[in-house]
Amino acid sequence: MTRQMRLGAFLFGVGHHAAAWRHPDVDPAGAMRFDFFRDLARKAEAAKFDAVFLADNVGLLAGSAQAISHSAPIYWWEPLTLLAALATHTSRIGLIATVSTSYMPPYHVARKFASIDHLSAGRAGWNVVTSGSDAEAANFGLPHQRAHDERYARAAEHLAVVKALWDSWDDDPLLLDKAGGRYFDPAKVRRIDHEGTFYAVRGPLQTTRPPQGHPVIVQAGSSENGQALAGATAEVVFTAQQDRAVARAFAQGVKDRAQAAGRRRDDVLVMPGVSIYVAPTRAEAEARFETLQAFVDPAASVAAFRSFLDWDLSQVDLDDPPPPPPFTQGWQSRQALFYDLAQREGLSVRQMVGRLSAARGHLVLIGTPVDIVDELEAWFRDGAADGFNILAPILPQGLDDVIALVLPELRRRGLFRADYTGTTLRDHLGLARPVRAPAPGPASDAILETQA
Amino acid sequence: MTRQMRLGAFLFGVGHHAAAWRHPDVDPAGAMRFDFFRDLARKAEAAKFDAVFLADNVGLLAGSAQAISHSAPIYWWEPLTLLAALATHTSRIGLIATVSTSYMPPYHVARKFASIDHLSAGRAGWNVVTSGSDAEAANFGLPHQRAHDERYARAAEHLAVVKALWDSWDDDPLLLDKAGGRYFDPAKVRRIDHEGTFYAVRGPLQTTRPPQGHPVIVQAGSSENGQALAGATAEVVFTAQQDRAVARAFAQGVKDRAQAAGRRRDDVLVMPGVSIYVAPTRAEAEARFETLQAFVDPAASVAAFRSFLDWDLSQVDLDDPPPPPPFTQGWQSRQALFYDLAQREGLSVRQMVGRLSAARGHLVLIGTPVDIVDELEAWFRDGAADGFNILAPILPQGLDDVIALVLPELRRRGLFRADYTGTTLRDHLGLARPVRAPAPGPASDAILETQA
Repeated sequence: MTRQMRLGAFLFGVGHHAAAWRHPDVDPAGAMRFDFFRDLARKAEAAKFDAVFLADNVGLLAGSAQAISHSAPIYWWEPLTLLAALATHTSRIGLIATVSTSYMPPYHVARKFASIDHLSAGRAGWNVVTSGSDAEAANFGLPHQRAHDERYARAAEHLAVVKALWDSWDDDPLLLDKAGGRYFDPAKVRRIDHEGTFYAVRGPLQTTRPPQGHPVIVQAGSSENGQALAGATAEVVFTAQQDRAVARAFAQGVKDRAQAAGRRRDDVLVMPGVSIYVAPTRAEAEARFETLQAFVDPAASVAAFRSFLDWDLSQVDLDDPPPPPPFTQGWQSRQALFYDLAQREGLSVRQMVGRLSAARGHLVLIGTPVDIVDELEAWFRDGAADGFNILAPILPQGLDDVIALVLPELRRRGLFRADYTGTTLRDHLGLARPVRAPAPGPASDAILETQA
Repeated sequence: MTRQMRLGAFLFGVGHHAAAWRHPDVDPAGAMRFDFFRDLARKAEAAKFDAVFLADNVGLLAGSAQAISHSAPIYWWEPLTLLAALATHTSRIGLIATVSTSYMPPYHVARKFASIDHLSAGRAGWNVVTSGSDAEAANFGLPHQRAHDERYARAAEHLAVVKALWDSWDDDPLLLDKAGGRYFDPAKVRRIDHEGTFYAVRGPLQTTRPPQGHPVIVQAGSSENGQALAGATAEVVFTAQQDRAVARAFAQGVKDRAQAAGRRRDDVLVMPGVSIYVAPTRAEAEARFETLQAFVDPAASVAAFRSFLDWDLSQVDLDDPPPPPPFTQGWQSRQALFYDLAQREGLSVRQMVGRLSAARGHLVLIGTPVDIVDELEAWFRDGAADGFNILAPILPQGLDDVIALVLPELRRRGLFRADYTGTTLRDHLGLARPVRAPAPGPASDAILETQA
């Protein structure tokens, strides 16, 4: 079969545009209702998306209350709460949520995703991130976020522990032998006895091995450290890219790293985010974009630039070109993306911060269905993308537009599935089910003992 | 209106009897399916229970794999995963789950329960416990559990932080002013700036104040420290009691402590656990009990005694009376309960450990509907209980029996509701909605700033 695109539906409040909630067609409090998300997930499932995707932060972003109060809260729901509920209102679509490794112990993360994978019969994915803001650190007892390198070293060890916990039970441990009184085979569960630099975790997990073996590992960091971790461990890389050639180099670089780590190039799928403004004519599509941009307040955008990227431009003239970014520990790669974009296109500070409002640095496509699909196809055929995580500017309307206008054109070209052929997220993505790692701990009757 | 009982449906794998899964009528793997829990919760809701209740541990209990393999895994689901899903498949019943304060940061706990309270429109309850086993500690980097006093000191501070986070938003913060671009009123959200002995948490929470103000605070510890915390903060106390006079002293003691803390006696409801074997005749009820007891292996019970209570009786003659318990940091009050029971009734070690299999130390009632309700009513009228958390020996059948046989007799005597009169768990329990605590942090435009 021809290679086909993977598509994620990135759900994000009432839409990805910073001013989405002010749009006349949008219910500003919609995203505070579960049925809003349930309906979006069901709609994406009916359209055969690979997965819905939920991002996260673990703090209100920094900035004055006045500045923040302009925005609809995006990470209002704790994402695993939402994901668990969505699992029981859908049957085929994948369910990916972000959980930061920085402040949640690996035992909890392993257990929660194992439960969601069981609840959804194999549709869970974990977007592995590190928390990059002081505002988050302050909610967990730290005066400042940890250094970038340490965050990634912790993340790598955290992920290894989580995988070992998922593997602490074999795939077929249950005996259910009522007469003999043996519920499971004790030889098929074992401790992990992890003693690392940052974590000490004994295991085993309480939950049997997830249906997918491991929920799908997604990674979103695009820094050097992020790419190294992705090459070694990620199965899906979600990334912000503006330029096809740069995106191609990034995607192939990740696959090179995967290959160097003994994996196949297809074991990691690169999915840039793309915000789509589509309409039957270009003029209508442009009008959709401009309608939203008109709601953007430049002062609020400067404040958002600081809170989202830790890049303070409040003392700079809005009509000057931007100075080099601070490259702070938080958001190195995203700061570089905006700075490069401004240099490449000769943008003023005002113009640069306006781009953040549209899609936070992700690619923005505006045009007819043919325009949009031409560009998506070019990226796909060029090796710049294995698929896309789609950011609707407003919800639910932006997702409706993509389903009604873009998917038919993709299907006409044979680039997207007409129906699901499997049942798990791994099936949809064409990813192999991980074989259980060899037992790291002792295999004996005493494997669960705490004392001699 | 006459005072009525509160009733919880304590869901616990395929039943509370340790050998439930071996019963011929039980599907041993049932509790690994979501629909099993969904059907139980809906059944309990149709019967107008106040709440379903989920317990938890964060580790497979200690003991040899051989010993553990005799048991169906009970804490197989991560409980908040299950609770979130159940919230969207029920509409009126309360949803209580256990989360230990020992290993989950307060910011995460506050956020998750706030999300579940929103998801359920005000039906969430948090059973606040501390983790009392080395097997759990070893999953979170500690060689041994913390000392009992420190666990409770941490729990008290943890709970205070969680409540402050729930109060970090006012009840009416939303402006949704599209024209003015103001989503919420910045004066109605504030940091908590908590700097305590064990936690430093800045806040605010990302989620607006829960529908109930605070999800209902449940507490299960019955030790001295547990009672002190319950008197000061709990709204429901779940407890294991065997003797009505002892239970009355316990319940009134908790209410005395509440009153001493400036609360009303009715602000805290005491709900002992009770395992019910009911049938139309006493002989049938006894037979139901004996059927399950016949599946109990004394060696496995001794092992369970050690893993559940940290009380090792493997070197003691099964037919001798038990020696005094070790009173280890883990389970002081539950060890005392079994020892007192054995002394009071002159039980051998064999008989004492058998009692653990039936209901882990909770009261066991065996008889006709009238027998059962006579006893429940006596506890209720005597001030020993405001209601009961009901432990069905096997599920779903044991819950069906209580609904079919016990509830009609309770209703005939006017002791239990015919229908819900409110919509939230607080409504069901008759608990007031907490008024938001006065702002602890600065109230200014800079309340969310991380830097000057």
